[in-house]
Amino acid sequence: MSTMLSIAETAEWLKKHDEYLILTHRRPDGDTVGCAGALAQGLRDIGKNAFVLPNPEITPRYAVFIEDYLAPDGYSAEHVIIVDTASTSLFPKNGDEYLDSVSLCIDHHPSNTFYAQNTCLDSSMASCGEIVFELLMAFSGKICAKSAKCIYVAVSTDTGCFSFANTTSNTLRVASLAVAAGAPHVKLNRRLFRTKSRARIKIEGMINAGLEFYFDGKVAISLITSEMMETAGADEDDVDDVASIPGSVCGVLVGVTMRELTSPQDCKVSLRTSPVVNANAIAAKFGGGGHAMAAGFSLDKPMSEGKLVLLEVLKEFIPADA
Amino acid sequence: MSTMLSIAETAEWLKKHDEYLILTHRRPDGDTVGCAGALAQGLRDIGKNAFVLPNPEITPRYAVFIEDYLAPDGYSAEHVIIVDTASTSLFPKNGDEYLDSVSLCIDHHPSNTFYAQNTCLDSSMASCGEIVFELLMAFSGKICAKSAKCIYVAVSTDTGCFSFANTTSNTLRVASLAVAAGAPHVKLNRRLFRTKSRARIKIEGMINAGLEFYFDGKVAISLITSEMMETAGADEDDVDDVASIPGSVCGVLVGVTMRELTSPQDCKVSLRTSPVVNANAIAAKFGGGGHAMAAGFSLDKPMSEGKLVLLEVLKEFIPADA
Repeated sequence: MSTMLSIAETAEWLKKHDEYLILTHRRPDGDTVGCAGALAQGLRDIGKNAFVLPNPEITPRYAVFIEDYLAPDGYSAEHVIIVDTASTSLFPKNGDEYLDSVSLCIDHHPSNTFYAQNTCLDSSMASCGEIVFELLMAFSGKICAKSAKCIYVAVSTDTGCFSFANTTSNTLRVASLAVAAGAPHVKLNRRLFRTKSRARIKIEGMINAGLEFYFDGKVAISLITSEMMETAGADEDDVDDVASIPGSVCGVLVGVTMRELTSPQDCKVSLRTSPVVNANAIAAKFGGGGHAMAAGFSLDKPMSEGKLVLLEVLKEFIPADA
Repeated sequence: MSTMLSIAETAEWLKKHDEYLILTHRRPDGDTVGCAGALAQGLRDIGKNAFVLPNPEITPRYAVFIEDYLAPDGYSAEHVIIVDTASTSLFPKNGDEYLDSVSLCIDHHPSNTFYAQNTCLDSSMASCGEIVFELLMAFSGKICAKSAKCIYVAVSTDTGCFSFANTTSNTLRVASLAVAAGAPHVKLNRRLFRTKSRARIKIEGMINAGLEFYFDGKVAISLITSEMMETAGADEDDVDDVASIPGSVCGVLVGVTMRELTSPQDCKVSLRTSPVVNANAIAAKFGGGGHAMAAGFSLDKPMSEGKLVLLEVLKEFIPADA
């Protein structure tokens, strides 16, 4: 059984102990990395030893925010803390040895499985960063500019720069206070949300301009050929998340992204749907799968042909009056 | 000469008078419309008669936020207020009769020309909405949900949902308080930032794919011709905020958007710059103005010719080693 701790109790616990090692989750995002950095800095600010376990899957985009806190080889921690991690299946790849020995889990996921000895959970928070902010305020009454930077990274990335449906008044409040405490939000926004590579803007432009609409605009299809990728000079990073583009058009219920794979005989299909259409059920017809609103499958056909087959199948999934 | 009023003085002035008519600026955006709606509602909440002058150029995107406040034919105002409007050249097309009789101008543009009898100006504010928020708090101590909605529209649209460089801690604070006061931010974000019309996605695609780069990629220019607008089926709503696109490319210090106006002899130029280049100073060379990182001007030249003239002027503004 895990002991549930309030913010005040967690702050007390953190003040009482020392020699911390902080873990982030698998495929680390801005929230887990920002929380780890902010907590490490905040604990150091009150005289504690605190380090972050290097995460083998971290990308350059986020690595910079914990580079000052990475645990050296042989660091012997007394207390292991993990942030933004709902279950042990999400532990980092090098975190197996800590599966049964986490002293404290700080999280905002309602699906948390209470695997840690102590858990500080608030599932009303859009980001775990909002909880870490309250902890820092509780145990030291202020946050320094370095912590503020990490808090801003956590809360802004988990809410799509405050545009996602999970954003709350509190998210904006914490962001405001982090900026007031010195978070370089202009630089961070530019880097995290507003800067695209030249290849990305080009391929995005080609995708946007080339969207095809069917079923009275209820279906939008994006076709990404190898030739388009080459013309734009785009690599895999540049097409990260382009599958969300067709579904962002007003009135579209099914957004389809078809990508030509290296062999011209094959293509990969991503589906994004509004709640009235089940993406998983469509993908299942082609031997694929996923979630209710995001699924995918592969097709052993050239794209042009695959598109016709898919359109035929979509007929039975598109509601007539939606 | 215009009398400069503080927030407290402006609030006193608003409480003392009555029978208000509120004007928005030419080509109304979310900030001017949101300010007008919030101010009209706030004044009504303290028992005043307050109406907004219908703006002939308003788009459906923003019209909804002032539809409850539109001045009926023959409304005889005692005091004309204008919001978010730096000079008389930006008066709405039907605003000529008020050019010399504006009682109060509420604005955040450093380029304000002090044409009104009284001016409440704070150029440190990212949006005029932040000033109107303070006014509402000053004269009634709270904001209702309807005002909060308009305030949220103003502050979020003027800062690109809090991602633009003009965003401050105060912008986020005001947004947080507006959400707490009942602004339906999830619905607004979806509508204002996360859903695009088919024409918008098309024109955005054409802009992205057609970007031109100069000065080793430090300058990106987007040329929007009337023909592109027609091909995409795009209206004014569809090109709202496209001026931010060229500046979003990695390495770009000056993002330029040139827009062909109805007469092929004219074009409108919008500049978005990184902090190392002063957009206002560039615009001033052409008789325009704005802010340090966002400014604009009109050119009495065809676009292709205007581009060459601008590139020549840009030479002296682009740092060699930035």
